[in-house]
Amino acid sequence: MRDVEYMETALMLARQAKGQTSPNPLVGAVVVKDGRIVGMGAHLRAGEPHAEVHAIRMAGEKTVGSTVYVTLEPCSHHGRTPPCADLLIESKVKRVVIAVKDPNPLVAGSGINRLKDAGITVEIGVLQDEARQLNKHFFHYVQTKTPFVTLKVAASLDGKTATSTGESKWITGSEAREDVHHSRAEHDAILVGVNTILKDDPSLTCRLEGARRQPIRLILDTHLRTPVSARVVNDQCAPTWIITGNQVDGDRVELFHERGVKVITLPSETIKIDDLLTKLGLENITSLYVEGGSTVHDSFVNEKAFNEIITYFAPKLIGGKDTPAMIGGKGFLNMEDVLSLTISEIKQIGSDVKIVATPVKG
Amino acid sequence: MRDVEYMETALMLARQAKGQTSPNPLVGAVVVKDGRIVGMGAHLRAGEPHAEVHAIRMAGEKTVGSTVYVTLEPCSHHGRTPPCADLLIESKVKRVVIAVKDPNPLVAGSGINRLKDAGITVEIGVLQDEARQLNKHFFHYVQTKTPFVTLKVAASLDGKTATSTGESKWITGSEAREDVHHSRAEHDAILVGVNTILKDDPSLTCRLEGARRQPIRLILDTHLRTPVSARVVNDQCAPTWIITGNQVDGDRVELFHERGVKVITLPSETIKIDDLLTKLGLENITSLYVEGGSTVHDSFVNEKAFNEIITYFAPKLIGGKDTPAMIGGKGFLNMEDVLSLTISEIKQIGSDVKIVATPVKG
Repeated sequence: MRDVEYMETALMLARQAKGQTSPNPLVGAVVVKDGRIVGMGAHLRAGEPHAEVHAIRMAGEKTVGSTVYVTLEPCSHHGRTPPCADLLIESKVKRVVIAVKDPNPLVAGSGINRLKDAGITVEIGVLQDEARQLNKHFFHYVQTKTPFVTLKVAASLDGKTATSTGESKWITGSEAREDVHHSRAEHDAILVGVNTILKDDPSLTCRLEGARRQPIRLILDTHLRTPVSARVVNDQCAPTWIITGNQVDGDRVELFHERGVKVITLPSETIKIDDLLTKLGLENITSLYVEGGSTVHDSFVNEKAFNEIITYFAPKLIGGKDTPAMIGGKGFLNMEDVLSLTISEIKQIGSDVKIVATPVKG
Repeated sequence: MRDVEYMETALMLARQAKGQTSPNPLVGAVVVKDGRIVGMGAHLRAGEPHAEVHAIRMAGEKTVGSTVYVTLEPCSHHGRTPPCADLLIESKVKRVVIAVKDPNPLVAGSGINRLKDAGITVEIGVLQDEARQLNKHFFHYVQTKTPFVTLKVAASLDGKTATSTGESKWITGSEAREDVHHSRAEHDAILVGVNTILKDDPSLTCRLEGARRQPIRLILDTHLRTPVSARVVNDQCAPTWIITGNQVDGDRVELFHERGVKVITLPSETIKIDDLLTKLGLENITSLYVEGGSTVHDSFVNEKAFNEIITYFAPKLIGGKDTPAMIGGKGFLNMEDVLSLTISEIKQIGSDVKIVATPVKG
């Protein structure tokens, strides 16, 4: 079935722009005429042309009577660019194959309807799951107005994130740490607790060769204990935002503002994860990569406020009744209350094991 | 290469007797004449004929001029059965292909030499690694006179073995629990701490359909706190041995002896794992499956006294700073001291993940 092959090409094109299109989705498009690919395109950056525009430009006059494969329903609204549905109609395309409908319930189907009204044959659902998975951050954000939350933990095989003296460098190997940098680059923001800043003073930048965009660095810091001298406050490598409760000193906030650091004060004394996510959604943060210690992770797990957990297990045993655990707090008391997950990926990375899991809905 | 194929058949035959030959190894043999298999055999039980005997009996007169494939060097000594090397010579075999030499340094090569002296062509090393892996318990036991020790842990994805209220039934799913029963059946003895007896009063028998042999149940119980009424003391389903320190009451020991339970008193007040393993070796225990809680596992990890650790991770998050960890005690203080492992198997079992790892030597 050639439709699947061409859609795979469109998905492959879309994938190349990972980490550089937010808050827009990744989209790829392929134009096929008489059994040959005559145009290919991908959306590369918000504000720039959509995938269909690039592909149709490449195809030129060959669009007449062609089939266009696109990984997401073409838009029908005038945004920063004109509607792609109109462009497909004007280009005299004969057939449009779409992987998945627009996730926004208010506009879903309107691009498809416009194409159909113009007499174009439309097929929907080819490689739908792959297309949804590719844009899982975007789909979640559009549907909830809050960021997709990924928790990340690196632990020894016995579930410890540090030795009893607090040493945690390095539990996992270099390949796993590079994988973490890839994940950072695919999220709009990364979040740590203030304890991590106080203990390690990390830079939290994405160290990949040619990283396209540095994610925003967020610090969960109820009482604004972040030192003004911290690396993330002064290095200008990426934006830094500090999230606090409502009992913080205005003069101290000013010190951070002066250094270009945004301080976001949430409405209650202690930070509620729901408030945080709502606020980040309003700030156009579509995805959040949480590199917490056990306290931060406990906050997200306790409120079931995450979409994915990535665990790296290193082939080491640290042991110890009181050494730091992956998730702190009180924990769930009874087996019937524990948080159930579904494992979506198991992979050896270097000498470590990566396990990706998602919370079971309901 | 046909040699590899025939040796695979011999290994397959050997594998069928898993869990029923101890303290003898698993051995398979295949007789091939003129490109056809004319005899097959496996060692099925200590005291019964060796694999070569069965295979040669099946082949009858066709052994003359044949090639015999055997997964372990044929014996050259008079044990409970006559030497297999002599039988091969008498049967006028032309060529013998051996996967691996006898692990016992005192006899290694003597069977091979006897065959060679009789003019038989001998080849060694075909599928050597597979053959060694198949009998890893036996090889370790023969070379060290102590049992091969397997630690087993079942934990949530965040490394917890129970909730903070102590609930641990069930963390893993039924497929993983069945896998545990298979592992039990492949070991001579299973070991738990007295706390497990006090808390759960388990039967610790191997619940597999038609389990061939019940492993001996060992309880690590320094002060002989096991209740005389415990299930393992009274159910007669399998032998039970209690391991104690040297400060226990003789009258109380007698109560257990009366019920057919062996009490093994080690020479010091607290139990040393080294002493335990030496003693078990003397008792012909070639393999030990440790299903400890965090204290028992800590003892083995701390003394690096284990050969393999099998971890089952369930897709659940329990959380909690003070919930039971996989390995208790004090833990290793510094990252340079932590115990390094090599991962040998990663596998999804039902909804859980099984990770097998072995300590890095040195």
